[in-house]
Amino acid sequence: MEIGFESFYSKRARGMKASEIRELLKLTQNKEIISFAGGLPNPGAFPAKVAAELTKEVFENHAEDALQYGTTEGLPTLREAFAENYSAHKLECSPDQILITSGSQQGLDLLSKVFLNPGDTIIVGAPTYLGALGSFRAFQANIESVPLDEKGFRVDALEEKLEALKHEGKRVKFIYLVPTFQNPTGVTIPEDRRKRILAMAEEYDTLVVEDDPYGRLRFEGDGVPSLFSLDRGVGRVIHMGTLSKLLAPGLRVATLMGHPDMIKKFVIAKQSTDLCSNTLTQFISAEYIRRGHLDEHVKFIRDLYGKKKNIMLQAMDDFMPSGVEWTRPEGGMFIWATVPEGLNTVDLFSKAIERKVAYVVGRAFYVSDGGEREMRLNFSYASDESIREGIERLGKVIEEAL
Amino acid sequence: MEIGFESFYSKRARGMKASEIRELLKLTQNKEIISFAGGLPNPGAFPAKVAAELTKEVFENHAEDALQYGTTEGLPTLREAFAENYSAHKLECSPDQILITSGSQQGLDLLSKVFLNPGDTIIVGAPTYLGALGSFRAFQANIESVPLDEKGFRVDALEEKLEALKHEGKRVKFIYLVPTFQNPTGVTIPEDRRKRILAMAEEYDTLVVEDDPYGRLRFEGDGVPSLFSLDRGVGRVIHMGTLSKLLAPGLRVATLMGHPDMIKKFVIAKQSTDLCSNTLTQFISAEYIRRGHLDEHVKFIRDLYGKKKNIMLQAMDDFMPSGVEWTRPEGGMFIWATVPEGLNTVDLFSKAIERKVAYVVGRAFYVSDGGEREMRLNFSYASDESIREGIERLGKVIEEAL
Repeated sequence: MEIGFESFYSKRARGMKASEIRELLKLTQNKEIISFAGGLPNPGAFPAKVAAELTKEVFENHAEDALQYGTTEGLPTLREAFAENYSAHKLECSPDQILITSGSQQGLDLLSKVFLNPGDTIIVGAPTYLGALGSFRAFQANIESVPLDEKGFRVDALEEKLEALKHEGKRVKFIYLVPTFQNPTGVTIPEDRRKRILAMAEEYDTLVVEDDPYGRLRFEGDGVPSLFSLDRGVGRVIHMGTLSKLLAPGLRVATLMGHPDMIKKFVIAKQSTDLCSNTLTQFISAEYIRRGHLDEHVKFIRDLYGKKKNIMLQAMDDFMPSGVEWTRPEGGMFIWATVPEGLNTVDLFSKAIERKVAYVVGRAFYVSDGGEREMRLNFSYASDESIREGIERLGKVIEEAL
Repeated sequence: MEIGFESFYSKRARGMKASEIRELLKLTQNKEIISFAGGLPNPGAFPAKVAAELTKEVFENHAEDALQYGTTEGLPTLREAFAENYSAHKLECSPDQILITSGSQQGLDLLSKVFLNPGDTIIVGAPTYLGALGSFRAFQANIESVPLDEKGFRVDALEEKLEALKHEGKRVKFIYLVPTFQNPTGVTIPEDRRKRILAMAEEYDTLVVEDDPYGRLRFEGDGVPSLFSLDRGVGRVIHMGTLSKLLAPGLRVATLMGHPDMIKKFVIAKQSTDLCSNTLTQFISAEYIRRGHLDEHVKFIRDLYGKKKNIMLQAMDDFMPSGVEWTRPEGGMFIWATVPEGLNTVDLFSKAIERKVAYVVGRAFYVSDGGEREMRLNFSYASDESIREGIERLGKVIEEAL
């Protein structure tokens, strides 16, 4: 006797489909393929030796606490370590503004849980981070989008959108952005635009979610103040940071920062979500940060990724047929390329796989239509030689399709 | 300028209050208090040495994978290790029936996400596990409850409830139970009742969620088949197991098992919830199970907790005034006590705290009313001497209130 599970699923679950993108990504797991598809840190760069040493010490000194349940807010020493480290890097904050989350994806899940009723309106970039769309869709949000240019969120379009939604009587719960070295485009919103976005958030009484996994990965150029720091503790900005790109994703340690009153609500939401984050890796992370390893390691991967980005850009210059355009980010992990009219990156994808090179198709990052001629290229994961080889292959694929 | 965050919160979040119970539990954190309040494993029993040794090996042999993102389903070797270990302990299953979750609390969160629309009806025990109520409430379920007796879920009451709900046109999405050494009462549903519950689930076309953190912690008496094994792969039963009580909660490693088709839906839901569980502690757990340490350690804590339970029961016999009643579980971590009429455990709580002993008030485990004369006593956490001393104090508190 078979059970029809479909009828048991919630409306939100019925809307959850195995994403076409994930199916495409499975094709990239063949070891022969040079993959620019993932958003993965370079595994060769993980500070395994230091992490192993610290873990040994954690077991020696804190075994009973590190194996027990922890507080939902996160390990106090870890919250303090983050507050101190962030504050030393122009992101002024205090421990009571910080919630430790199991990766930033959990931050997005909690954000949706705490703010979104089905049908509630939010604004994202077109394009924007795929995983954020996944969370917002799971909570049945009405997702509106605003186009980007080479300086990120187009503020004229944002204002129009806010005004139009106001006229329709639709309240905007929050504006979600990855303002620095954006995933997927690599672009950064300059300070004056950030200030305008904040002013608009105040005028239209909405919140701003600053997803910031890459901010510390600046290879060149001048830093831009975070929206969180520009907000000066008012509470209009919620900031998400993570150790996934700076240290190691396997630890699942990230931060969500906001006004202490709001953090209390997030703590209650997290309580029913997973009780607490991994205690052992919180201890390891706290020691890692406290002893200055994080700052050292960030310097190291900035050098590493900066070189890889230059190798990729040089290869693009050398091998891409004319008509292909791409961003030249000053940091992060991604380059965003646009192929000439007449081509589309979904059709190109299967040809690329035949030639053993992979990327993520642009349309994955759009709420509805868009991105047909766009692709995301990751430069942090592949080896230096593979980057050049892979871009050469990709150049040929595009050339042949022209 | 202050921001009124309240108006931004979702309906579900507005319903989330800092629980009165959590406030009470904070009072128990004073080191002078003998606490029977938590549901914590004994920290002295954590296998820290073995865990430290295995972790060292994981860093030596798998550092790159153990620090990277993992698959959403969970580490393949861990799913295999669980399938083999569970199957060897009368819980026949295959890796594709298993999803690794970040603790069982995440299993409950995913369960709610996948099955519950606001207002959807489910059935739980009266009393039932507090943390499950937290998850179901966060997803705005209509929670109906069925009274327990010394054999757990009263099946006559369950049938009445199912029939009544059918007449009201209310579909029951699932029946949630902790059938073995229940939290909070310690009681176990015998095999014949389990079969009747399964038959009712089939007749009324609903699912059964078997939350089973304590099943392996049997100190005496004969084992009872799990509902999952009685279902024989049909898919009507979803089983949740965890390493939190058997190994260490800080690792945040648990399992959710169901029909492979359903597990696929859970994987999509988990993808947007936290991408993947902690990779490092999944590697440690896989090695721990594969090498037979789990089975050894379960024997060890069974002995340890079995003795503690006997010490608590002896102390109850020695120090409780007449009129107090309690369960005599054959395993698990909890005893459930009922004080004489005229008393209530909320009033007694502050007197208990004055005398430096703590428990959880019964009403925390009820959907609405109930549990006024009941309390949950944990015997796994406190030292042997403290158990006797604490029960003596508690006996005096009750005696003075009579």
